[in-house]
Amino acid sequence: MHRGAGAGQTAYSVFPVGNYKFGAKQPKPEKDNLTESRLLRIKQKYDAEGVRRTVDAILLVAQHSHPHVLLLQYGQSHFFKLPGGKLKPDEDEVAGLRRKLELYLSPESELLRSPWDIGEAVGCWSRPNFDTVFYPYNPPHITRPKEVKKLFMVQLPEATYFGVPKNYNLVAVPLFELYDNYSRYGPVIASIPSMLSRLRLNTV
Amino acid sequence: MHRGAGAGQTAYSVFPVGNYKFGAKQPKPEKDNLTESRLLRIKQKYDAEGVRRTVDAILLVAQHSHPHVLLLQYGQSHFFKLPGGKLKPDEDEVAGLRRKLELYLSPESELLRSPWDIGEAVGCWSRPNFDTVFYPYNPPHITRPKEVKKLFMVQLPEATYFGVPKNYNLVAVPLFELYDNYSRYGPVIASIPSMLSRLRLNTV
Ligand SMILES: [Zn+2]
Ligand SMILES: [Zn+2]
Ligand SMILES: [Zn+2]
Ligand SMILES: [Zn+2]
Repeated sequence: MHRGAGAGQTAYSVFPVGNYKFGAKQPKPEKDNLTESRLLRIKQKYDAEGVRRTVDAILLVAQHSHPHVLLLQYGQSHFFKLPGGKLKPDEDEVAGLRRKLELYLSPESELLRSPWDIGEAVGCWSRPNFDTVFYPYNPPHITRPKEVKKLFMVQLPEATYFGVPKNYNLVAVPLFELYDNYSRYGPVIASIPSMLSRLRLNTV
Repeated sequence: MHRGAGAGQTAYSVFPVGNYKFGAKQPKPEKDNLTESRLLRIKQKYDAEGVRRTVDAILLVAQHSHPHVLLLQYGQSHFFKLPGGKLKPDEDEVAGLRRKLELYLSPESELLRSPWDIGEAVGCWSRPNFDTVFYPYNPPHITRPKEVKKLFMVQLPEATYFGVPKNYNLVAVPLFELYDNYSRYGPVIASIPSMLSRLRLNTV
């Protein structure tokens, strides 16, 4: 617990996107690409395992000295997501997020990999129903949400290699494009600028 | 700097609104009530003093066990603001916020006062132009914003007295009413739920 007034303003270094090398790797098989079948699967898992716990990573790169967030775009769709995903039952949040980052972003060659430096939690969102709506609080009279999604900062090294599954594009989207853009990015990603505003983002 | 994955999830206790006693005190004279004359004054100050630094406080109370944010409503207007305001040149942020909390919320009687426990920063917003628009980042190609507004959590004691200037009402607004409600509360207050989502708010 850090309650002092200086707390909350952690610094992160944001390096130019040109410092990173992006390669392709084997496609990641997707369980379901349609929202409908996805929500059905989520419901089945909930009945079996209880509250779905997901973890997502915020990775920043600088382009013309503005912070940009790395998003995974599924094929040529309009579906954007943060690198991350569902934890296994009892899986530790940080260990699970590392596993997801390896899956989505680590290069296939062990030699080219850097460790993933998971930073602090920057948000926690609830999905009260089996639909696509998330709130940044536990909505009134929802005793048990269907999903709890936690977002973590990740400090990228100054330079490294990425390996992106062939069925995804990795795109860098500036904060000002995400801000308040619910219709395109959904409530969680559109709120990243608000969640990060307290941090010191030092674009290098 | 706290970059560990556990960081970011500070806990705050949120006590029932019924624990607090609210009294009235002398009205706080307002420099200008019209947005237009307010913006003109801000511009004059900027020309004289440089970037306007403001600090605002987030105080939470629980009502039917949901966190509510305390907002100051000017008379019967639709103008809501957080307790806080402009720092003097070179004034320390925490000292300045304490001064503003005393002005807006401390009871007149010294005997009834509790100290203000200022917590961590939860947001930092920029006003690029002399208008009412704020962004949770420094907008591209704005080398010097007109105002930088920083928001801090304040941990209320379990029970205390408030003294509110007669020309203001103190209202408690639930997170779900603020969330995404730009038109009524403006971008900063409407983003409080997103800025706080990472925190543990223990309603008692
Ligand atoms: Zn760009
Ligand atoms: Zn630019
Ligand atoms: Zn209420
Ligand atoms: Zn209720």
